[in-house]
Amino acid sequence: MESEQIKIPQATAKRLPLYYRFIKNLSLSGKQRVSSAELSEAVKVDSATIRRDFSYFGALGKKGYGYNVNYLLTFFSEALNQHEVMKVALIGVGNLGTAFLRYNFIKNNNTEIVMAFDIDPNKIGTDIGGVPIYDLEKLEEIITDEIQIAILTVPAGVAQSIADRLTEKNIRGILNFTPARISVPDHIRIHHIDLAIELQTLAYFLQK
Amino acid sequence: MESEQIKIPQATAKRLPLYYRFIKNLSLSGKQRVSSAELSEAVKVDSATIRRDFSYFGALGKKGYGYNVNYLLTFFSEALNQHEVMKVALIGVGNLGTAFLRYNFIKNNNTEIVMAFDIDPNKIGTDIGGVPIYDLEKLEEIITDEIQIAILTVPAGVAQSIADRLTEKNIRGILNFTPARISVPDHIRIHHIDLAIELQTLAYFLQK
Repeated sequence: MESEQIKIPQATAKRLPLYYRFIKNLSLSGKQRVSSAELSEAVKVDSATIRRDFSYFGALGKKGYGYNVNYLLTFFSEALNQHEVMKVALIGVGNLGTAFLRYNFIKNNNTEIVMAFDIDPNKIGTDIGGVPIYDLEKLEEIITDEIQIAILTVPAGVAQSIADRLTEKNIRGILNFTPARISVPDHIRIHHIDLAIELQTLAYFLQK
Repeated sequence: MESEQIKIPQATAKRLPLYYRFIKNLSLSGKQRVSSAELSEAVKVDSATIRRDFSYFGALGKKGYGYNVNYLLTFFSEALNQHEVMKVALIGVGNLGTAFLRYNFIKNNNTEIVMAFDIDPNKIGTDIGGVPIYDLEKLEEIITDEIQIAILTVPAGVAQSIADRLTEKNIRGILNFTPARISVPDHIRIHHIDLAIELQTLAYFLQK
């Protein structure tokens, strides 16, 4: 089960945590097998897509039997490296940043936000959901090599300069929630999530 | 330019607002043409993808010349129906909901959040960013037929019951920010955005 070697499309990768979460609940409730129709209904992904996704990992299901829940659980857990927690720093404790810190409680996840940064003196020195908030000015000093991911929930205008500071550290991935399109060296992976664009995309499809 | 008739992939549609925003700024700064390389650098999408995206709308660029900025602007503006603003209701004024309401100020968008709902008596009757917050109990009474999109930023446990109430109204699209996978009638389009899953997907790619 050399999941580390498998190249899968980003769209499929995005559904893995979803599959994992549902399969884990099934397993906890003692269920031993699941059909792709049941999976489809639960995770709201059509069966054809589920079967195609699963095919990237080899044939995991049998016709008329469905999928073995524990096998799937072991498989997804391996694929998602659930045993290895990635440490995350969050930059910008505004409303969106705070939402993330509270969300941090929800486990079932291979990531953990362990520190946050802001410039607001009223926030610095406090914590949200157990995550300490530090002075952004001391970013370079406080952020450790074990932090591999940064979440950017800062105003767009400062996104690039903060990204530049992060690239000097051991960061390998940035989740960018600002509308700014930022530039980073090739060894750093950036995912952009723009709330306005998510809304606009939905509107676009409704207008067609 | 019958943009309404064109069927384009969802991934392409998601990039339209991004293209539009950049092209609009170019036009405002008086620029008349742009190459796909410049576009690529600015919006952080590779040139091949840009050319493929643009090909869905017919050949818009000329080799060695690039794209005509005003033509693109008219085109994207049509495609995104910038002249027609879709009214949006936001349900759940927690941290994430509040972030959205503040974000509402950023125009350059064909959507506008015009009302919000919550159960917190301290929030009901106030407004954020000019958007009034109403009692969730009065949802059916207050929400009007002009509201076509709802943003769900409520706890996962109540997502389905609120969605059920919304489907009784004129809602055509739901942007679901809860981890719950909710069921709605076929005529309603749902987009799911799960912050935990976005983070987990980035972690997944870093671990490969």
